[in-house]
Amino acid sequence: MISVVILGAGNVATHLFHAFYKAENVFVNQWFNRNLKSIDFYKNMVNVTSDLSSLKPADVYIIAVSDDAISKLSSQLPFENQLVVHTSGSVGLYDLDKKNRRGVFYPLQTFSKETSINFKNVPICIETADKKDFKSLKLLAEAIESASFKVNSDQRSSLHLAAVFVNNFTNQLYRIAHEITESTGTEFDILKPLILETANKIQNLSPYSAQTGPAKRNDKKTIKKHLKKLENSPHKAIYEILTASIQKTHGRKKL
Amino acid sequence: MISVVILGAGNVATHLFHAFYKAENVFVNQWFNRNLKSIDFYKNMVNVTSDLSSLKPADVYIIAVSDDAISKLSSQLPFENQLVVHTSGSVGLYDLDKKNRRGVFYPLQTFSKETSINFKNVPICIETADKKDFKSLKLLAEAIESASFKVNSDQRSSLHLAAVFVNNFTNQLYRIAHEITESTGTEFDILKPLILETANKIQNLSPYSAQTGPAKRNDKKTIKKHLKKLENSPHKAIYEILTASIQKTHGRKKL
Ligand SMILES: NC(=O)c1ccc[n+]([C@@H]2O[C@H](COP(=O)([O-])OP(=O)(O)OC[C@H]3O[C@@H](n4cnc5c(N)ncnc54)[C@H](OP(=O)(O)O)[C@@H]3O)[C@@H](O)[C@H]2O)c1
Ligand SMILES: NC(=O)c1ccc[n+]([C@@H]2O[C@H](COP(=O)([O-])OP(=O)(O)OC[C@H]3O[C@@H](n4cnc5c(N)ncnc54)[C@H](OP(=O)(O)O)[C@@H]3O)[C@@H](O)[C@H]2O)c1
Repeated sequence: MISVVILGAGNVATHLFHAFYKAENVFVNQWFNRNLKSIDFYKNMVNVTSDLSSLKPADVYIIAVSDDAISKLSSQLPFENQLVVHTSGSVGLYDLDKKNRRGVFYPLQTFSKETSINFKNVPICIETADKKDFKSLKLLAEAIESASFKVNSDQRSSLHLAAVFVNNFTNQLYRIAHEITESTGTEFDILKPLILETANKIQNLSPYSAQTGPAKRNDKKTIKKHLKKLENSPHKAIYEILTASIQKTHGRKKL
Repeated sequence: MISVVILGAGNVATHLFHAFYKAENVFVNQWFNRNLKSIDFYKNMVNVTSDLSSLKPADVYIIAVSDDAISKLSSQLPFENQLVVHTSGSVGLYDLDKKNRRGVFYPLQTFSKETSINFKNVPICIETADKKDFKSLKLLAEAIESASFKVNSDQRSSLHLAAVFVNNFTNQLYRIAHEITESTGTEFDILKPLILETANKIQNLSPYSAQTGPAKRNDKKTIKKHLKKLENSPHKAIYEILTASIQKTHGRKKL
């Protein structure tokens, strides 16, 4: 049995609480947030507090607060030599106060309040300052059925950067497609099966092999038509740069 | 019962053949390709030919050949006043020879030989020169359980452009992520659940509401770290332009 204390009550903290609460081998000994309101709802399931000085003992303290607040909160903890981890892809391991044993438990997934998530689909990237602490975090990931990966700081920040490309930037391409379809009175919904299939395809093929379309074929006629349609649009430059990127990857001449 | 003749033997033609062959209310009267080799395998299931002068009668002739070859092939057809459609998102309706009744049966999905596809997940965009022909194409789509949408030329070319953003460009973002993870010795596989969740999320949320991340939050510290990591990389300009695009969409100040 691993005991944990969760600090923070946002998207990640809340999803983690639910996963830990359901897990057989994890006991959530306490849930802290700077204001009690957001966790008051859970007070019959877990001990809740907004008082740092009354934090309970635990094998792992998980700081799942906004990136900017992690460092300060870690320095306010009223104990030493405990295992304290944050959940961020971009904050350094050594931004945590050194009075405690430091680690990172970074769930590489997108969390939001509206969408439930199965932790089987949440790879956890683990980093620890002390090798001996790796095992506890690995067991914690296993307890919620997440795959876990040992990474160093450089790898974690690369994964976070890569995640921005496949999540935030991809989502912005969906947004642009939404604007394009709306502008001619068609429905964005028509694109949804294609969006799913595009994501499905690379589960078994490399993105390199999965590529198709006018840029890869160097179909100048179609590219020209598209650029004409995008004249005066802020999306034209995005079309050009991504077309050039595909052509570079696939050894085609520049636009 | 609708009878069809398929012309061409590429990705789309082959997937359509399988779907029509399975469908109760469609009869594939013949399959034409300029060389017999690619369709010879099917000769026990359907009449195959490489001779345009021996084309059989059908309610609908479906030209599923490369975009550049559609116009010429349509002019070589040895009959008049039949319903002849192509399957392209970007070729004009009037690029088909006017001696026949013209239409478009554009499947908005990505097809490749390696991946099987369920036509339930293939929206068909239908365009016809003559209103009366719309119904036959709609029935044809229904027969293979595809949803169908009536579009005009401008709408179809917008949908094709939007498809390039959500399919080809998104796939290139996956490729870039692949390069980023490889460069630090981590596995692209760790990103796959996030890629799926990103596509799943907008099945019920708009891309606008689904957006998260440093660009939307205007988290300058993280953006700066990422740009530093991408120094000397051709992907830096893509990071900048997509970050600016997100910030414009969400009313943030420019980088
Ligand atoms: N969301 C994701 O998809 C995701 C994915 C992987 C990793 N992460 C990482 O997980 C961590 C939490 O992200 P999140 O999305 O869950 O954030 P969030 O939903 O915005 O919640 C932030 C939490 O931090 C608390 N907080 C903010 N400033 C604080 C301060 N100065 N002192 C104490 N608490 C403070 C907030 O408290 P109040 O409730 O009082 O406002 C809130 O509970 C971040 O490090 C993030 O990088 C997020
Ligand atoms: N692939 C997709 O994801 C997709 C999606 C929606 C729409 N489409 C549209 O569907 C159509 C076919 O695309 P595809 O991907 O199936 O193409 P493909 O796999 O490249 O196959 C092209 C077919 O066209 C034939 N062809 C090429 N030049 C020809 C010529 N001059 N005369 C006669 N036949 C010729 C080829 O014959 P050989 O077998 O003899 O080489 C081959 O059978 C295109 O209009 C495309 O825009 C494709």
